[in-house]
Amino acid sequence: MRTFRRALLCGGLSLGLASHAGAQTAPLLGFTPQGSAAERALEAKFDSSLSADAIRARLQQMAAEPNQVGSPHDKANAEFELAQFKAWGWDAHIEVFSVLYPTPKAESLELLGDQPYKAQLTEPPVAGDATSARTDGALPAYVAYGGDGDVTAPLVYVNYGMPDDYKALARMGVDVRGKIVIVRYGAGWRGLKPKLAQEHGAVGCIIYSDPADDGYGPGDAYPKGAWRNENGIQRGSVMDMPVRAGDPLTPDVGATANAPRIPIADANTILKIPTLPISYGQAQHFLAALGGPVAPKGWRGALPLTYHVGPAAQVHLVVQSDWSQKPLYDVIAVLKGSERPDEWVVRGNHRDGWVYGAEDPLSGQSALMEEAKSLGAMAKAGWRPRRTIVYASWDGEEPGLLGSTEWAEAHAAELQAKAIVYINSDGNGRGFLGTEASYSLRALLDQAAGDVKDPETGVSVRQRALANLAVKGAEPGATEDDKKRGKAAASGVLPIGDLGSGSDYSPFVQHLGLASINLGFGGEGSSAGVYHSAYDTFEHYDRFGDPGFHYGVALAQTSGRLVLRTANAEIAPLRFTNLADTVGDQVEELKKLTRTMRERTEAIDKLLDQRAYSLAADPLLSSAPPEREAAVPEIDFKALEDAVTRLKASAKAYDEAAASAGALKPERRNQVNALLQGAEQSLTDTRGLPGRPWYRHLIYAPGLLTGYGSKTLPGVREALESRRWPEAGEFVGRTAAVLQAVSDRLDKATALLKG
Amino acid sequence: MRTFRRALLCGGLSLGLASHAGAQTAPLLGFTPQGSAAERALEAKFDSSLSADAIRARLQQMAAEPNQVGSPHDKANAEFELAQFKAWGWDAHIEVFSVLYPTPKAESLELLGDQPYKAQLTEPPVAGDATSARTDGALPAYVAYGGDGDVTAPLVYVNYGMPDDYKALARMGVDVRGKIVIVRYGAGWRGLKPKLAQEHGAVGCIIYSDPADDGYGPGDAYPKGAWRNENGIQRGSVMDMPVRAGDPLTPDVGATANAPRIPIADANTILKIPTLPISYGQAQHFLAALGGPVAPKGWRGALPLTYHVGPAAQVHLVVQSDWSQKPLYDVIAVLKGSERPDEWVVRGNHRDGWVYGAEDPLSGQSALMEEAKSLGAMAKAGWRPRRTIVYASWDGEEPGLLGSTEWAEAHAAELQAKAIVYINSDGNGRGFLGTEASYSLRALLDQAAGDVKDPETGVSVRQRALANLAVKGAEPGATEDDKKRGKAAASGVLPIGDLGSGSDYSPFVQHLGLASINLGFGGEGSSAGVYHSAYDTFEHYDRFGDPGFHYGVALAQTSGRLVLRTANAEIAPLRFTNLADTVGDQVEELKKLTRTMRERTEAIDKLLDQRAYSLAADPLLSSAPPEREAAVPEIDFKALEDAVTRLKASAKAYDEAAASAGALKPERRNQVNALLQGAEQSLTDTRGLPGRPWYRHLIYAPGLLTGYGSKTLPGVREALESRRWPEAGEFVGRTAAVLQAVSDRLDKATALLKG
Repeated sequence: MRTFRRALLCGGLSLGLASHAGAQTAPLLGFTPQGSAAERALEAKFDSSLSADAIRARLQQMAAEPNQVGSPHDKANAEFELAQFKAWGWDAHIEVFSVLYPTPKAESLELLGDQPYKAQLTEPPVAGDATSARTDGALPAYVAYGGDGDVTAPLVYVNYGMPDDYKALARMGVDVRGKIVIVRYGAGWRGLKPKLAQEHGAVGCIIYSDPADDGYGPGDAYPKGAWRNENGIQRGSVMDMPVRAGDPLTPDVGATANAPRIPIADANTILKIPTLPISYGQAQHFLAALGGPVAPKGWRGALPLTYHVGPAAQVHLVVQSDWSQKPLYDVIAVLKGSERPDEWVVRGNHRDGWVYGAEDPLSGQSALMEEAKSLGAMAKAGWRPRRTIVYASWDGEEPGLLGSTEWAEAHAAELQAKAIVYINSDGNGRGFLGTEASYSLRALLDQAAGDVKDPETGVSVRQRALANLAVKGAEPGATEDDKKRGKAAASGVLPIGDLGSGSDYSPFVQHLGLASINLGFGGEGSSAGVYHSAYDTFEHYDRFGDPGFHYGVALAQTSGRLVLRTANAEIAPLRFTNLADTVGDQVEELKKLTRTMRERTEAIDKLLDQRAYSLAADPLLSSAPPEREAAVPEIDFKALEDAVTRLKASAKAYDEAAASAGALKPERRNQVNALLQGAEQSLTDTRGLPGRPWYRHLIYAPGLLTGYGSKTLPGVREALESRRWPEAGEFVGRTAAVLQAVSDRLDKATALLKG
Repeated sequence: MRTFRRALLCGGLSLGLASHAGAQTAPLLGFTPQGSAAERALEAKFDSSLSADAIRARLQQMAAEPNQVGSPHDKANAEFELAQFKAWGWDAHIEVFSVLYPTPKAESLELLGDQPYKAQLTEPPVAGDATSARTDGALPAYVAYGGDGDVTAPLVYVNYGMPDDYKALARMGVDVRGKIVIVRYGAGWRGLKPKLAQEHGAVGCIIYSDPADDGYGPGDAYPKGAWRNENGIQRGSVMDMPVRAGDPLTPDVGATANAPRIPIADANTILKIPTLPISYGQAQHFLAALGGPVAPKGWRGALPLTYHVGPAAQVHLVVQSDWSQKPLYDVIAVLKGSERPDEWVVRGNHRDGWVYGAEDPLSGQSALMEEAKSLGAMAKAGWRPRRTIVYASWDGEEPGLLGSTEWAEAHAAELQAKAIVYINSDGNGRGFLGTEASYSLRALLDQAAGDVKDPETGVSVRQRALANLAVKGAEPGATEDDKKRGKAAASGVLPIGDLGSGSDYSPFVQHLGLASINLGFGGEGSSAGVYHSAYDTFEHYDRFGDPGFHYGVALAQTSGRLVLRTANAEIAPLRFTNLADTVGDQVEELKKLTRTMRERTEAIDKLLDQRAYSLAADPLLSSAPPEREAAVPEIDFKALEDAVTRLKASAKAYDEAAASAGALKPERRNQVNALLQGAEQSLTDTRGLPGRPWYRHLIYAPGLLTGYGSKTLPGVREALESRRWPEAGEFVGRTAAVLQAVSDRLDKATALLKG
């Protein structure tokens, strides 16, 4: 669902750039030196079965027809995979769920008035792309879980439709109540656009891809180049996933046939207003009809017109959906562990696409199957992992992480007792390794990435990612984020991103509290140019995504190492210094945020007192000053500061003890592993986050107002950002408590290692 | 020539926002309390004769026909003004010069190849704008002082054509040698575009206005709105004015009939390659034909196409000019001073336009004439200024500040002996007062602006400018410059911009060392949307520039006060604390620049050592690392630091003494005034700046590589930026010496005031 091309490019170090050769002989985390050598030999064997051609052929077959939830080809793909797993020696089955998955029955969009225009809502075939013509069984372009409706209202352009855009609109004197909004993709998650429109009183929502962000701006349009053409439409989910993922009718439980279900009317993750996605070729007709104020500079896209805010022309929008249940087919395959069968390593990627889904998700899915093939071959030759390995092909990720969430909810207790890591991928591309992960897994990732060779340069994928981050941070025009990542790359360890949402790791890490990794390659080429459109085909991916499929192999090698090392380590390969340091930095960030908000509030109050806004306003334009906001009080961060101080000491002691630990007696080793297995869960609070108890992790969550983007220390941070001061104070305490719980656990583990 | 709308918006203070009433009774700088009251009464009389309708009618008449240098209407306008000055009681004459002014004889531009296209180089009339159809006597759209040529070569897009753009091109593997470049307006002065193209080996240059910067991006195109339409062409000068302004054949002397002239071939301010300006409607045909790498993100404009860098299609470009001499008519009018006739206050605005020139320059010119009318009426009633007032209507500003420069050079000795200030304006608009000035004049400007009422809000123009800067600095998305100006506004005194170039103050301040002010209103509306095109008409200006002409009156009131106060003050109204503080800040800036350059050089060296650039590069694209640059040595700024320390003390002592000075005996007052008259000249060095000795001021100059934009402490700064370390050291010494010279002068003046 989420595309990695631009978002995931975190990772890097400039000092370590020359250290690749050395990394390949260093002892592996959690292994003795002898164990390391055996593990590396095993990984070489694993690599030897991986085939770029096989990844390509599998992708071509699976992407040959539309394969959204409920489609015949989605089911056929599940059955194909099941047969493959079995043939490769896995213990595999299909687990079926039944979920609410709305599909469009009727949709239309018309501009009324003097120059009426009826929008084209389909994507015609593209010359040279045979797949794009096989539209049998495809759904019309739509967004899932918007409301049904038939509305006629004036149109208003709201830029990216994020909270600051509505503040700017208010200052321009434009009100969206009773209006239909037209909003462009970008800057925040899709689902927030109709949600925020609805909260501001709009009665309908049109989302389009502006060519400045996603079209001929960044590159030549398909089929000349890889980028979205004037007909390309971005489908997607608008379920209110920042509140909860999964089937809207079965909160907290697996959507099995007989699960208790709430009425649709009570499902709080379904939006109310009708919403349609359109192409920029169509959007141009609607934007050109707008009058009213000229859009501010940052609101202008690349269409050849003056962007106005409106309101103006009347628009007629109709969306009607079939709200029946549809089946989900999760393919689950198990290789039972030889020594520690009740400790699980779970690896997943989704299988359902919006149409053909070549890049998203089948490029990652086909690499995952290649890993399974190789692991199966090793198992057939008599090998067994120390821990149990579970491979999963999720269905229904696109509409709302359905397959992963329902499975995670159905097996919650067992997963919380057994799983030590969940490893996720999604669409894959050419370029640089990007990762998001639990902070305790950074060292594991860094070491594994150091042992995989980059197909284009021959250095390790770690070294290449570090070089890329270092260069990006030093280029003219580097953003503050680029500079920050460039600096992180200079630390010598692969930086990792913060876990937000947008792919199947979310239920595992944020709901169950399982340590998780999300990884993929990207940053070169432009397979993202057809994201969630009918042009995300094999033909497009083969030309622009990963020609030669070498990065498919690199993904299998990297995630294969993560799976194998976690499965075979004597002691689970977690390290905690990075957790302590990162959270320490975040606490400082929050203190700075509080100061900045206070200074800004005071500065604006002063300008309001001085009438500066009205004096600076152009009397020929409608404009208003910003709203006066309440003063920012002092927030007491001491509990968090103390918890960080202790965690730094506990983490350092544990990491040092783990690095120098000799062979442990089995019982002691079991106790340490048990403490480690539950460490990430210690960071959760069963009461969850305010207004969204499904999200229990107190260190990372998708932002309630950013969607995919991660908010770290979310209980405190979102309370501050929303100016709910008492709640911020409460979450300082709760967050400090989970950090203390991790320290307790680490202190015990350290004592066991030393004892 | 330069348009004020966007560039000049400096000025402001949030603390002083409520102090307008008080400001009107405070004693005026250089006056006794009684003198202040009399002066204010005089100014009320001055105001009473100013008429918005008269400014409008004069503009309409003067902008009725094309009035570029050498045109019949330009001469007619000069004769009209001469008659007016005389009728109003001024001692007026026309001073004639003869200058090299090339005019186009032949020009054409064609795209060759499979889909040939011949560019339209004219601007058709616009419905509803009668003036735009009166094209008799207009020149074809062209740029003045490019080379003649007939060249056919592949085309390359070079973005804004600034030095960093060529660095980026080199890293993309694109070479402009032997190519024709297409470059968009913006980011640096027009003339640098062909100059830098030529220096990089290009054989021709096409400059166009991209609609993202100047067209339908910022607002609806003319005639629907005020902005440049698809046919609008920006003319202008490409003379190498950062080296020297004025007639290319008579460096350093007035271009009188018998002045010695150098051969055209020896004139180093004439460029070599043929250059043409075109509209975006025409540019689209050429840009769409480009292949090669996709342009980087910051290079993309708002045309509906993928911007490529090229090279690709062959282009045929022809420019041939008539290189004969043309006459200039400067109108000079004098009101002789009663007490100090040998101290001059000079006030000027140019009169020549590129076509009709309604906004640029006649909006400012008509306000200047209104001032002259009112001063004349007062003189007819028996009043005389204490000092001599000289009003000037410059010809030939557009091609290269010709009229002002030749006059300044012809009268250099007298001006350096007599002039105490030069006050300039140019195009004027609706909105906020913007100023650039010698630092010693900030206090005068602040006080005068506090006494003029803003037409739209009723507060002083000072208060409104301060409010605008404060708000801009606090808005979301404020740039670093906005924030800096917002902070300056909070100091309580109207900030002033640094004097660069782009209008007629340049020869006075930078060549002769006379304290200068440049002022105008702008920032609202969008008369700049037709800058230097045939659509800069009375009709356009009357609709979009200054409807009602109230800001024409505000300009006359503001500059009238500056003229009157400087002419009538007992002691010239200069203050020096701001000079000392500003230069002190600039020295700190240069120290920081040196550190930043050093750190950056070291960081890039390290990345080069690590091969990070080649590892991060996409092998499917052509790319190269940046060039390795020499290390940055330690630069000794001590001489400058010491000079600043002394100047701060000397300035403080002088300003305090001036504020508390009682009545002085005439001889002592004469001595102080003489010291003040030469103070700004103390900041010059007769050896001038490296490679451009015409520029003698060591505190401000137009940047050699920025054109209009000011470089402060230019000798040191440009040496650092160009990595000429010994030269930087030399100019630390020279700049320190001129600061010491000012301190010497101030110390003497202080002793006289106290004595």
